[in-house]
This record gives sequence, structure tokens and C-alpha cells, in this order.
Amino acid sequence: MAGNTFGEILKVMTFGESHGAGIGCVIDGVPPGLTLTAEDIQKDLDRRKPGQSEVTTPRKESDTAEILSGILDGKTTGAPIAILIRNQDQRSKDYNELKDIFRPGHADFAFLAKFGIRDHKGGGRSSGRETAARVAAGALAKKILAAQGIHIAAYTRSIAGIEARTVDLSVIEKNIVRAPDLEAARLMTERIAQAREEGDSVGGVVEALVTGCPAGLGDPVFGKLEAKLSSAVMSIGAVKGVEFGSGFRAATMPGSQHNDQVHVKDGRPVTKHNFAGGISGGITNGEDIVFRLAVKPTSSIAKKQQAMTAEGGTADLEIKGRHDPCLCPRIVPVVEAMTALVLADCLLLQKTIK
Amino acid sequence: MAGNTFGEILKVMTFGESHGAGIGCVIDGVPPGLTLTAEDIQKDLDRRKPGQSEVTTPRKESDTAEILSGILDGKTTGAPIAILIRNQDQRSKDYNELKDIFRPGHADFAFLAKFGIRDHKGGGRSSGRETAARVAAGALAKKILAAQGIHIAAYTRSIAGIEARTVDLSVIEKNIVRAPDLEAARLMTERIAQAREEGDSVGGVVEALVTGCPAGLGDPVFGKLEAKLSSAVMSIGAVKGVEFGSGFRAATMPGSQHNDQVHVKDGRPVTKHNFAGGISGGITNGEDIVFRLAVKPTSSIAKKQQAMTAEGGTADLEIKGRHDPCLCPRIVPVVEAMTALVLADCLLLQKTIK
Amino acid sequence: MAGNTFGEILKVMTFGESHGAGIGCVIDGVPPGLTLTAEDIQKDLDRRKPGQSEVTTPRKESDTAEILSGILDGKTTGAPIAILIRNQDQRSKDYNELKDIFRPGHADFAFLAKFGIRDHKGGGRSSGRETAARVAAGALAKKILAAQGIHIAAYTRSIAGIEARTVDLSVIEKNIVRAPDLEAARLMTERIAQAREEGDSVGGVVEALVTGCPAGLGDPVFGKLEAKLSSAVMSIGAVKGVEFGSGFRAATMPGSQHNDQVHVKDGRPVTKHNFAGGISGGITNGEDIVFRLAVKPTSSIAKKQQAMTAEGGTADLEIKGRHDPCLCPRIVPVVEAMTALVLADCLLLQKTIK
Amino acid sequence: MAGNTFGEILKVMTFGESHGAGIGCVIDGVPPGLTLTAEDIQKDLDRRKPGQSEVTTPRKESDTAEILSGILDGKTTGAPIAILIRNQDQRSKDYNELKDIFRPGHADFAFLAKFGIRDHKGGGRSSGRETAARVAAGALAKKILAAQGIHIAAYTRSIAGIEARTVDLSVIEKNIVRAPDLEAARLMTERIAQAREEGDSVGGVVEALVTGCPAGLGDPVFGKLEAKLSSAVMSIGAVKGVEFGSGFRAATMPGSQHNDQVHVKDGRPVTKHNFAGGISGGITNGEDIVFRLAVKPTSSIAKKQQAMTAEGGTADLEIKGRHDPCLCPRIVPVVEAMTALVLADCLLLQKTIK
Repeated sequence: MAGNTFGEILKVMTFGESHGAGIGCVIDGVPPGLTLTAEDIQKDLDRRKPGQSEVTTPRKESDTAEILSGILDGKTTGAPIAILIRNQDQRSKDYNELKDIFRPGHADFAFLAKFGIRDHKGGGRSSGRETAARVAAGALAKKILAAQGIHIAAYTRSIAGIEARTVDLSVIEKNIVRAPDLEAARLMTERIAQAREEGDSVGGVVEALVTGCPAGLGDPVFGKLEAKLSSAVMSIGAVKGVEFGSGFRAATMPGSQHNDQVHVKDGRPVTKHNFAGGISGGITNGEDIVFRLAVKPTSSIAKKQQAMTAEGGTADLEIKGRHDPCLCPRIVPVVEAMTALVLADCLLLQKTIK
Repeated sequence: MAGNTFGEILKVMTFGESHGAGIGCVIDGVPPGLTLTAEDIQKDLDRRKPGQSEVTTPRKESDTAEILSGILDGKTTGAPIAILIRNQDQRSKDYNELKDIFRPGHADFAFLAKFGIRDHKGGGRSSGRETAARVAAGALAKKILAAQGIHIAAYTRSIAGIEARTVDLSVIEKNIVRAPDLEAARLMTERIAQAREEGDSVGGVVEALVTGCPAGLGDPVFGKLEAKLSSAVMSIGAVKGVEFGSGFRAATMPGSQHNDQVHVKDGRPVTKHNFAGGISGGITNGEDIVFRLAVKPTSSIAKKQQAMTAEGGTADLEIKGRHDPCLCPRIVPVVEAMTALVLADCLLLQKTIK
Repeated sequence: MAGNTFGEILKVMTFGESHGAGIGCVIDGVPPGLTLTAEDIQKDLDRRKPGQSEVTTPRKESDTAEILSGILDGKTTGAPIAILIRNQDQRSKDYNELKDIFRPGHADFAFLAKFGIRDHKGGGRSSGRETAARVAAGALAKKILAAQGIHIAAYTRSIAGIEARTVDLSVIEKNIVRAPDLEAARLMTERIAQAREEGDSVGGVVEALVTGCPAGLGDPVFGKLEAKLSSAVMSIGAVKGVEFGSGFRAATMPGSQHNDQVHVKDGRPVTKHNFAGGISGGITNGEDIVFRLAVKPTSSIAKKQQAMTAEGGTADLEIKGRHDPCLCPRIVPVVEAMTALVLADCLLLQKTIK
Repeated sequence: MAGNTFGEILKVMTFGESHGAGIGCVIDGVPPGLTLTAEDIQKDLDRRKPGQSEVTTPRKESDTAEILSGILDGKTTGAPIAILIRNQDQRSKDYNELKDIFRPGHADFAFLAKFGIRDHKGGGRSSGRETAARVAAGALAKKILAAQGIHIAAYTRSIAGIEARTVDLSVIEKNIVRAPDLEAARLMTERIAQAREEGDSVGGVVEALVTGCPAGLGDPVFGKLEAKLSSAVMSIGAVKGVEFGSGFRAATMPGSQHNDQVHVKDGRPVTKHNFAGGISGGITNGEDIVFRLAVKPTSSIAKKQQAMTAEGGTADLEIKGRHDPCLCPRIVPVVEAMTALVLADCLLLQKTIK
């Protein structure tokens, strides 16, 4: 309800705006006995925070997490974990001139239509800043998964049409666009720099890869894992599409090709191309889970645009705030977090069945 | 939980397998005073039922809906509506030879891993037959929406790479592939016939278009309308991807192009290309909602395949049952139903806000 | 939402009215591999059905349960179990004269205020008949519990002030009022007969006793087991109060007495009087769970009463239908069912923690 | 799930322990445009806080609420409201000697059985301190209700058998036991003082009265208002029973008396004694809502008791902390808060129906 809660057993509620005291989350249903420190959370927050490199917004937020509850002697107790990240670098004046204009590509008009109130100071809950709370919660979920040998890696698969040709997970954190291919990363970085110089922005594709996931997670019918993961990642602002395994290519393939070549390995059927993306009938089949997201170019650009005004006319708009010329590098940890929340929840749910 | 429930205010629980007494659903949260007859439901069930044309499986099911509860003098009372569709044309023997083999592209192995039990008679809850219950529930949701002037049309956008060039909603029900372009429909029909003759199957793309939707539906953060709709349609078997508005094309566009040209119409900002797909920041903006689904080719094909056996080896498999050579024509009403369930739920939820 | 769904992991949705096709339920989240037959369900339905003895309404309903789904070879598969009980002995004409009058003690006026529609044919969802669906679902829950050695017995503790002096579980089904004391049962039966002759009705107290429950079920804060059980049993029509262990007597006791004498048995603290009713801080402590319900006298009585009419005046009312002179004997299996649903749900939830 | 979330539309998640950084809550589903200040919340927190009078624990906590999110220019925006109350007066050493003993009447053993971890520093989530977060959330709910003319008053109806003879709402906050009868309040205060001197504690009955509630709130079947309110108030530690209107007295009354005398007022049926407690068939009927709670005597007493040790033996225990000799005065605002959360939720839910 009202959109700020996620999950069934591992349940997260997030809160906060960029103009207020801070943002944060409360996570219920955390298994007791799990080691958790503020550092576990900080590591991922640092990968998401603004100002981390030349391809992100220069806005500065240390995004320091404080764990308010649920920990005793460094371990979870089964009580809810509340995490608070205080705001620091607020420049509400950047937004004053946006008070009476609906920014193109943004939620301004839709929020007003919904709530009858407009939080023009940074977009309120439509601000990308809310994803920091997801990353904090996701860091905890990752710990639950890691204890079972499940690992998640997301990375920038393409930017503005420049594709990563290889997937080398070891280089992702060694380049500022978080691509799994250093040569492609170099080209992507250049393309982003060019967009920034032009007062423009670029989009891209982010891919997620989950290894070590046992067969049996996810539910039939409405609870299919693709449905849960899609809901999770399509809830990230700027994501316009999601596809699993073969994805949209499946639409042009015959069944005899898509069913793929099957052999048996470790007591389970393994396919040559993993077109299923690790999920069959909504339930993990033991292969790697693979999916991709379309990320649109940042809506806040410096270039002059036409926009509707509160009075119902149009006006020229040049957005002066500090914005990311490409969202992919900072969306990567958010995708990992949402994926982790879904899978940890499924892992706990599966305990009720078998 | 356990995957068989959908929705928040308008809540649906579905049940049933193709081998048992029947399938059906219970719908809670239905507004009182709505006119509803079995015919309202039957109309959409007939669009989904097997055996309706030469491009669908010849399996025969009349799929007759019986409304068990919630109606008084032809109107809803606010009580739950239960709908039962009895099974008729069961040929469990078709499935006997599948008892000890995991069909490629199917959920057989994953279900066994999850439940420790394998319902080999038609796949249990992974059977496409469960979608009849969704269509029944969706027919009710459509009535709620129609009363507010909201209309949903889904159609086959492409099959095996053959694209509809125009979108003429008036011809969708006038061709057996449910394409919005009669010339493309002719080519698609031929392509499906060819696949059937080859003992093979083909995939395609289904598009959904919602008109008349007011601005303000959907929620921020996790409850974004794209998240809810993605969850809804990615829960339909065989769907491998979903994209809204510009979709995956957004990944290659600059922001200045994607933000689109804005003008004002009826007091709201209107764009030239509707790249947002009618949704901004997760909330409807008053433009048409548009999204597309990738539908994989049917997994059950007559062509000989290699498959894993229950004993852990592999064996040749030729599936003898009666199957759809292309799923798109019958998925169309299911996509409409899931879309209707989401939007009717959002419409009711919005009443709690404004 | 909308009141017809219960439970978190083991989730039940019920439907149906006494005037329609029938009533029933769908149960999701059922563990796979459980043996379940229609007879398992019928046994408890027979204990609830009308016309079973001289102290119940003479209305006749065979209340035959049909399992529509979720069973393969006599065992649950993990798919939802749908159960349908067709209506038989409908005498809607009994209700025609009630169309324009609000019966005292009934939900007539409140339902109209809520829904704007009045289902005068038997009260719609406020009919006691809906509890048959609960009993069906509860029979399944009892099987889950029995497999863990957990057993539930409810019984009539008092009727119209006549108290059972002993609690002998073995005699409960050997007397028609379901009291655990045969001598008290005889007096209670006489008192009910007297009420019926007078065109009146009587109330009573029903007690529930759960044995074999392990420590650790229930949750802290809002999910306390008393909260869950109270919600469960207070949702049964005619129940006006609930108390656990010492109950309302606790209000007059000093802490030194209420804390009770503690000794150690089988590795856990055991008290002399079990004032806690088996629950400490909302979580089972390993002792028997004990609680009591106040059951009001049946509202439908033959005696002449004043009632408000639809036009806003008052009129004399003599209710002619066939009604129970005391609800306790038939509420007993409903209390067991609701208790079973809560505990089975808690048992499954606890698997996600430890 | 996991017990820390409450409500359907107006959804609250609470967190925190007495030994950690603080306690608090996040409230989702708050209607936009509502005036809310920290003072609104503080007023009720002050009524709950320790150290407020001679009949409460001398433990000192200022319980100052900080609103972290969801407010813009003094009004709610529809975004979640997070409230944080930092801990101050922690004396964890008081609890060190309790590390290896299970306190009688407390949740110590049950929590260990559930979580496998024992939070001995103040009881973790079983601490009464968690109710401060409920009171904060309830203060917001009260504002939603007050805007519709709905008002809630709870008060101490009896302590250790000393009954309030009259119900004068205007004197409740004028006496430290919060009784609606000043003469009874004097006797109750003396009785509590006596218990404290004896190193003992006393129980009582708290009553709640809701005025101005429209007919139509609550749902049929499982969502009956008595079920929701019972769940709400039985989740408060130390509450052992709840009864509505006639309550347990109904068990001894004949139907002809319990149905009560009906007359018509303002277009609705009004009864002489309101035995229904304002709720018929689970739905408000327009009369005052009235219910009572049994509050057990405080479990933490100074008197010497026998208790089980972690090693499985027994030992003498004298609890040295600072505790309330009677919980009723401080439970009063918690009962109001939980009642407000339920009714505000029902009010929002009802908008989806009519």
C-alpha cells in the first residue's frame, strides 16, 4: 500500500526526501544471528553515492548509515533493523525556480495529480535519493544470500549503444561506468563526457547475474520469480524495460531453437544458452539467473527545453541543478539491492514449503 | 504468499489444475452495485479458450463460468465473487509418458525442486490453463474500469519477426492472430501454419494500450505502476520481457530526444511520442499507457528433442499432446485481464488518497 | 482487505451466501505432501452443520464438501485447495418479510450503511453459514498441526450461567451441548430447551485448549499470539469477548500472585496455575494454550420485539425462520478451526526464523 | 510478518529497543494535506512517558519525537512519516544480573525459544518501551479521525477491584491514574501506593470509548471491527482479555434482553444499553464504540520470587530495576493509539467501497 513497503517475509519500508532530515528504511523479518555492521551497509552506499566519479553528479553526500535498532553484540536479534542516513548537501534553492514548472521526463505533473500537493524540493519520493535506502536494505539481504553461497553482480552492459563485448566480473569495480569490459568502459566513459559537455544525457542497459542460486525459489502463478524481480527493478526510476534470458529475442525464435540443447549436470538439466535465464515456470532451475534493464537517459538536462507551467502555458526551461549525465553506474548497486531483497525473501519463503 | 493471490484492494485468489475438477477464482474487494452476469465473463473466456481457431490447440474446453457467490439480483453486493470453470476435455493419458521426463522449456524440474512432488498431469499450476481464472477475474475488473471510461486493448504486435505496421483496434477481433493490421495478420497466420506443419512453434510480441486513464494512478517508490504492471504480465507463462513506451530503445537515446516535445492539452502536458508510455515517476500522467511483452515460442513441440529423465540421464522426447503453435492470440485476453486487475486496484487505492 | 482473507503463509479466502449457489474457501500456502480427503473435512463440517440435534436449528443442510483442486493421488501438491459446499435447504421466503426491517442484534442496518445494498436473504456475508467455509479450512490446518503433535479442543464451558465443573475432553462429543462435564451438559440442555419453548435464546462461554504446542510460536509487538488468536475468534459472529489464562481475573490480582509459582520441567519453566494461558510476551512458552470466549444469545428469536423499519419508523417483529436457541454447540468447531488456522500459520512462519 | 507491521492502508512499522539508539516508527498511507507537528505527537508521548507521576516508574525518558520525513511546510505530503525517539536513560547494568535467569511473567524464555538469541537488556522488543512508537503513530491517526469528528477516550475503569462509578471524561487527565471518577481515582492511587510499598503490583481494567464514529466502518467475516480492535489492543503487553459492549455478561443473558430496546434517532436504530458496543456484524452501527481490557499486574516486582535459571535450575529473584506498580495509567494512551490506528485505517478502507 502507498508504495513504500516491499517484500513478504523480509519486509522493507523506506522513507525520506532529499529536502528533509534524511532518508532510511526499516527491515522486518530479518533472521536472528546474522553478523551485521554499519560497514557492511556503507560499502554499497558508497557505490551508489553521488560525487563518486567524473561520470556522476558532483552533488556531495557522504551517505553515512546509522543502524538504529535490531543489533545486539554485532548480531541481528530478529528485531527490525532501522537505518538512518541524514541529509547533508541540500541546495533547495536549486529547486525554487522549478516550483511553477513541470519538468519534462519527470514525475512533477503526475505527483500533483495524485496527491494534490507538489513537493518541488527535489521531487520528494520521486527523487533518486530514495534508492539509498534500498541499497542499505539490500546490503543486509546480500548477507543472508552470501551465507547460502548466492552472489549477485550487476553491471553496465551498454551505454548509448556501446556494448560490453565480454563479461569479466572482476573488472566491474575497476572502471567508473561499472562495465564488465575495460575497453568498452573506456568508450562509454568518453561518450558520457561528451553528453555532459553538450548539456545532454545518455541511456544504457544494465545486466544482472545471480550465481549459486538453488533450484526451487519463486512461486507459481502470480508469484513467479520473473514477476517479483520485474516488480523490484521496474520500481527503480528511469528503468523502462526488463527481459530475462533470451528476452525480446525470444519473440523471433522458433520453439525448437529456444528449448535449447539439454544435458545433465549435477543432477539437473543444463542448457547450452540459458535462454530461460535461470527461471522455469517462475521458479529457479539451478542455472544462473540473468536479466537486463533498459535505463533511459537522465531527464534533468542543462539543454534548453519546452515545459508546461503551473498556469497551463509553456515556457523555456534550463535545469541548473547538478545531475548525472548517465544513470547506469549508480543504478548498478540499486539493481543488486532490489535483486537481493527479492531472492532473500524467496529463500525465507521456501523454508515454509520444504 | 505461495503465489496464488494478486492485488491489494481488489484481491484475487485463483485455484485449479487441468487434471482436477476445475479451475476458478475468488475476487474480494469488489465494489457493490456493479452489474455482473456470467455472460460478461464468458465473452473474454471465449477469446482465451482452446480450440477457437486453426492457430490454437485443437484441445476442446467449453470453459463455462459459473458465478458461485457475491451477486444479488444481477448486481455485486460487496461480497467476494467466486467463479468456477469445470474441466471437461481431460486426456491425462497424454501425460502418462511424460511422468519420468523433464520437458525442455517447461517447469517440470523446477516444480519438483520446489515442492518435492511433481504434478505431471498437465503441469499442475504451471499449466497455461490457470490463466482462464485470471481472464474471469479480469472481466470483472474491466467492468469497474469501463464505468470510469478506461478501456484496455491488447493485440499481437509481431509474430516471428512479422510486424503489424498499423494499429487499427477495430480489426483485432476480426483476425485469428488478433493483430491490429489485417495484412500483417495474414502473413502471421501463414507463418504459424508453417510452424505447426514443421512440428515447431513461434514467438511474438504482444502490445497493450490503455485509453481514458486519468492522471494519478500508481504509487511512488515500490508501487510504481510500471512495477505493478510488470509483475502482473511477467507472471503470465511464456512472457520473457516487458517494456514501457520507448522501452529498450531508450537505452540508445539522448535525454534531449527522450524528454520529447511537450505541449499543453486539456490542462496537462502532452508529448509528441509518448516515450513515457503514459507513466511518469510510476504514476499515470494522463496519456495512453503503452507497453509490450516478449512472448517465447511454445515449449511443447512435436519435433524430437533431448530431455533429462527422472533417473538423471537424457532421452529423446516427442511431445504428442495438443498444443498451440503460437501463444500470442490466446495470451492477448490474459494480458488485458492482468492489466485490468492492476488498474482497477489502483483506481480503488487512489480513493484512499484523494 | 474487504475482510474475506485470513492468514499470512497459510492464507484462506472464503466466499458465499446462504441464498446463492454455495459457500466455500480457497486455501493457499498449504505444504505439499499432506494426506487430505473430503472425509477429513466432512467430519468437522458435520459437527458444525445445522439440524444435528435438538439444541440446534432444524434447518437441514448436508454441508457436503467437494475438494476442487490442489490434491494429486490423495495428497496436497502445494497448490491452492479450493473447497465448495453447495447450498440446499434455502427458504428465501422466510426472509421476504424481513426485507424492510432491521432485525435487532443483527448486522442489517450496519451492512446497509457500509455497502449501500442490503442482502436481506439470510444476511449475506453476515450469515452464520459462512463459518462452514472456515471449518473446512480449519480441518486442513488441524492436519498440519496434528503432524506436529499439536491438538485443539474447544468446548462449552458455561451456558446461561450453568458452569462445567470439570474438564473431561473425552465426553465433549458425547453430549449435544459439547460440554466437558456430563452433569453440567444435562442442565445446559434443559436450559436451552426452556429458552426455545419461550421463543427466546441463551448465551454462554466457550473455552479452547491447545496441547502439545512447542514454545516459540507467535511474534513480538503486533504479531503477538493473543492478538492473532483474538482477531481470529472475535471475527466469529456472536462472540463478545475473549480472555487468555487468568483473563479478566488478572485485573484484581497482585503481581506476586499472578507471576505464579515456577518450577522447571523438561527444560522449561512451568507454573502452577498457567495464568499466562501458555503465552508469554505474545509467544508460546510450552504450556497449554487456554482462552475463553463470551458468546451472546442468538439474536434471531421468535418473541415479539420492536425493530426499526426501512422507512425510519418502528414495527413489531416476530422472526419466523429456524434458528439456534443457543450458539455454543455449533460455535465449538468454528473456534477450533480458527485456532487451527492461526497456529498452523504460526508454525509455518516460525520456519522462516529458526 | 515478524510482527512489527500494523494496518492495511494506514500502515505502521515500528522498531527499536530500550538498549539501542532509540525507538520509532514509519507510517505509510498517510493522506496528504494533513497538518502535523512534532507537538501533536509529543502531547500523547508525554502521557505515556515514564516518570510522569508517583504511580509510574521513576525511570526518566524525555521521549522527544523527531519527525524525519513526510512533512512539507507543516503538512503531510502523502509520503511516509518516520518518527524517531532517541533513548536516554539507559541503565543496562540493572539488567546484567538478569542475564541468566528467566523472569516470571516475562517473555524471556519464550523469546529465547523463538529466536535462539536472548536480548536480556530490557527485553528487546518485548519491552513496554516499544509502545512509545505506537503512541507516536496513533497521534497522527487521531488527527485523521478528529477531522471527521471521531474522538477516542480511554481511561482506567478499575484497579485491583476498585471501580469507577461514573464516567466523566473531563476528569481523566486531572488525576494520575486516569480514572473518569475523581473519588475512585483517590482510592486507586492509595491502592497503588500500597502495592509499591509492599514491593508488589496491581492490575486493572481499562475502558475505551469512541464517539462520533459513522456507521459502516469495519468489514464482514475476518475483518470485523471487533477482530481488528481486539488484535490491536491484545497486542499491548500485559493485556489479558478484551470485551465489547455487554462482553462476558452476554453469556448469561437471554436474547430477548440482549437484543435490547430499540428506538429510532437520526435515521438509525438506537438501543437503550448499547450491548452491541457500537458494532453489529463487525461493522459500526453509529452508536458509541465501547470496549474494556483486562490489564494484568506488572510482572517486574521487588518481592522475592522463584525463577528458572539458564542452567535449568531455579533461583531466588529480587528485581531491582525501576518499574510501574500499576500499568493502567500509562496503557491508557497506548489503547487510544491502537484504537485510532484501527479506525483511521477503516475510514480509509471505507473510501474504496462507498
